[in-house]
Amino acid sequence: MEIERLTDAARDNLLADLPRWRLGADGASIHRQFRFTDFSQAFAFITRVALLAEQQNHHPEWSNVYNRVDINLTTHDAGGLSERDRVLAHSIDRLVA
Amino acid sequence: MEIERLTDAARDNLLADLPRWRLGADGASIHRQFRFTDFSQAFAFITRVALLAEQQNHHPEWSNVYNRVDINLTTHDAGGLSERDRVLAHSIDRLVA
Repeated sequence: MEIERLTDAARDNLLADLPRWRLGADGASIHRQFRFTDFSQAFAFITRVALLAEQQNHHPEWSNVYNRVDINLTTHDAGGLSERDRVLAHSIDRLVA
Repeated sequence: MEIERLTDAARDNLLADLPRWRLGADGASIHRQFRFTDFSQAFAFITRVALLAEQQNHHPEWSNVYNRVDINLTTHDAGGLSERDRVLAHSIDRLVA
């Protein structure tokens, strides 16, 4: 299945739809930072995101330092943002809603 | 408990003792990259490292992109490398030995 990159208009819609995510400097990714009380809480979240990623067959680029988790979403096969990023970002937001 | 930074000589010993780890440009951290067959294998490893980190109360700065895991170890309380980094690095190496 080919994955299409979002048009500029669709990308603007995505950003409006995901107010807690920021567009990367390259315009090809979105980013959100999460903070928890400690590593254990952060890792519980990381584990739930990992399960979402496998379920959706779409994986984040992410990093963790103790209680902080930084998540970047992009779709390499599309050369930028795609609907997959929107879906995964919404799923992640629901975990911490 | 105060955590002491390793002396330069002790740091050289640590590096000799951990041939798969590289000293960071700042001289205050060590780094190793791991590659797996897919995200599932990478995340299994990530989970095991998380358990080690909690057990040792010493946590990595790390990132993951699909099958790749990058781990940086440093001891902020010591302002550089300490014995905690040596211990955690050895524990991580044993997971993939």
